Amino acid sequence: MLEVTEVYCRDLEEEARAVFGTTDPAHPGVARLLRESPWVLAGPVWVVQRPRSPFAELELDPAHTRAYFAGAGWRTVTAFQTRNPLHRAHEYLHKCALEVTDGLFLHPLVGETKDDDVPAEVRMRAYEVLLQLYYPKERVVLAAFPAAMRYAGPREAVFHALVRKNYGCTHMLIGRDHAGVGGFYDPYAAHRIFDRFDPGKLGIVPVFFGEAFYCRRCDAMATDRSCPHPAEARLNPSGTWVRQLLRSGQLPPPQVMRPEVAEVLRRYFAARPAEQAV
Amino acid sequence: MLEVTEVYCRDLEEEARAVFGTTDPAHPGVARLLRESPWVLAGPVWVVQRPRSPFAELELDPAHTRAYFAGAGWRTVTAFQTRNPLHRAHEYLHKCALEVTDGLFLHPLVGETKDDDVPAEVRMRAYEVLLQLYYPKERVVLAAFPAAMRYAGPREAVFHALVRKNYGCTHMLIGRDHAGVGGFYDPYAAHRIFDRFDPGKLGIVPVFFGEAFYCRRCDAMATDRSCPHPAEARLNPSGTWVRQLLRSGQLPPPQVMRPEVAEVLRRYFAARPAEQAV
Repeated sequence: MLEVTEVYCRDLEEEARAVFGTTDPAHPGVARLLRESPWVLAGPVWVVQRPRSPFAELELDPAHTRAYFAGAGWRTVTAFQTRNPLHRAHEYLHKCALEVTDGLFLHPLVGETKDDDVPAEVRMRAYEVLLQLYYPKERVVLAAFPAAMRYAGPREAVFHALVRKNYGCTHMLIGRDHAGVGGFYDPYAAHRIFDRFDPGKLGIVPVFFGEAFYCRRCDAMATDRSCPHPAEARLNPSGTWVRQLLRSGQLPPPQVMRPEVAEVLRRYFAARPAEQAV
Repeated sequence: MLEVTEVYCRDLEEEARAVFGTTDPAHPGVARLLRESPWVLAGPVWVVQRPRSPFAELELDPAHTRAYFAGAGWRTVTAFQTRNPLHRAHEYLHKCALEVTDGLFLHPLVGETKDDDVPAEVRMRAYEVLLQLYYPKERVVLAAFPAAMRYAGPREAVFHALVRKNYGCTHMLIGRDHAGVGGFYDPYAAHRIFDRFDPGKLGIVPVFFGEAFYCRRCDAMATDRSCPHPAEARLNPSGTWVRQLLRSGQLPPPQVMRPEVAEVLRRYFAARPAEQAV
C-alpha cells in the first residue's frame, strides 16, 4: 500500500544511461525500463500482504539469515548470486570460498529473468541435488533471492553485494561478467567498479574470480590465476553448448557439470515443447 | 660480531616449557635446546659477513621481496612455509590462495631440520620442477627461508607469520599441525593460538586450512571444509607411506604427488645409501 505524497516524471533514457551505461533497447534491462511509464508515484509504503513465493521455505529474510549465521558461529560468510544452473566452474568458486570462509550463502535469484533462462523451479531443484550430493550441508545455506534480474553488470554487482551485506554476509563472490548480458559490459568491469568504493564503507569484501574451467594438465578445476597451461588444455564449453547438449538428450562431461545436476536439466528440456526450446 | 655487554644464565627447562609446551627430550626442538649451554652472551650484534647459502639466488631479503611485490602490483600476497616436498595437498592450498590473493610467496625453510627430512637441495629441486610445470610463474615467488626448524607448533606458527609479514606478505597459510612434530601438539592448536592476538596488531591474516586430500566422489582435491564424503572416498596417504613407496622405486598416484615431483624424490632415494634410508 502506497500513501501517495508525490507524483513526478522521470527521464527513462537518462535513467537507462546511468544504470545500464547504454540506451540500446537490445539490452534486456533497458528494454524492460523503456516499457515502464515515465510517471512515478512516491510516498511511504506499507506492506499489507507480502507477495507469495513458490519457494516459501527458501525465502529467508535478512533478520533470519543473520540470526542463523550467528547461531552457527560463522564469523565469515561468502554470498554467491546466481541465475543459472550450476556448472563445475561455479562449484569450484564455492569450494574455494568454503576453504577460506566459514559459511556459504547460496542465494539464487528467483525473480524475473530473460525468457531463455532456465526457470527458477528447475534451477532450485538442480541446486538442491548438487548441495545434497557434493556440499558439506552444515556449512551452506540455500535461500531464494526474491529479486528481478536487471542485467546492469557492474552497478548491479555492487547492488548485489550491498544486499548480501544486509543478509549478514561478509564476503561476496564476483565472477566474470557478473550480472552482465550479451557483450554490453567488459567481463571485468564488475571487478574494477569496486575500486571506486572505500572497502570500510562498502562493508562487504568482494572476492573476485575469473572464468573457471577444467584443465587436463592440472587435472583440476582452475582459473587463469591458478593455472599456467594453454587454452587447448582447458575444457570450458559455453553455456549455449551445454544447453544444446542437454536439449539433445545428452549429458555434458562430469568435469563440466555434475551428472546428477545435468540429469535434472536434461529432463526439463525433454519435457519442454520443441518450439520453446530455441 | 657481538659486542658483549652482558653475560647471564638461562633456565633451559623453563624456556623449553614456555616455547615448546614440554620438556620431553623426545621433542627434537627440546632436545636441541637442552644441548645448548645455559650461558648466554648478550649485546649489540654487527654483521661483518653474512653466512653463505647453497641457494644464494633464492635468498631474498625482506626489502627485496617487498619491493618485488610492490613492483608486481600485488596488493595481497599469501606466504607458505614448508619444510617438506610438496604433495598435491599443498598445491591445493596454494591454488586456493592464488584464487583469492594476488601472489604466492613460497618460502621453504632451508636451515636445519630433523635428520629424516628430505635435504633442502632436493626439496628445492622438487619445488622448481613443480612451479615450472603447474604454477603461473608470474604470480609466484620462490625464496629460501634461512631459518632452522624448531618444531614449536603453535608458537612457531605465530613466529612464521610475523616473519612473513616482514617479508611483505598480507596472508599466511596455516595448515594442519603447522610446525608440529610427532603427537606433541593438537593438530589445530596452531589455528586456535591466533585467537589470542588482535588481528590489527598481528598485521598479517592467518588463513587456516585443514588436511587436504583427493576425494573420489568430488573427483577433486578438497578438505573437510569443502567435501561432505566419507573417509573411504578420500585418498590421503601418510607422508611415511609416500616415502616408503618412493624408496622402493615406485611413484605415488598423481592425485597424491605430481609425477615429475615424485621422480625427483625417487631419484634422491635411489641414490641414497640403504643404511640411511630408514
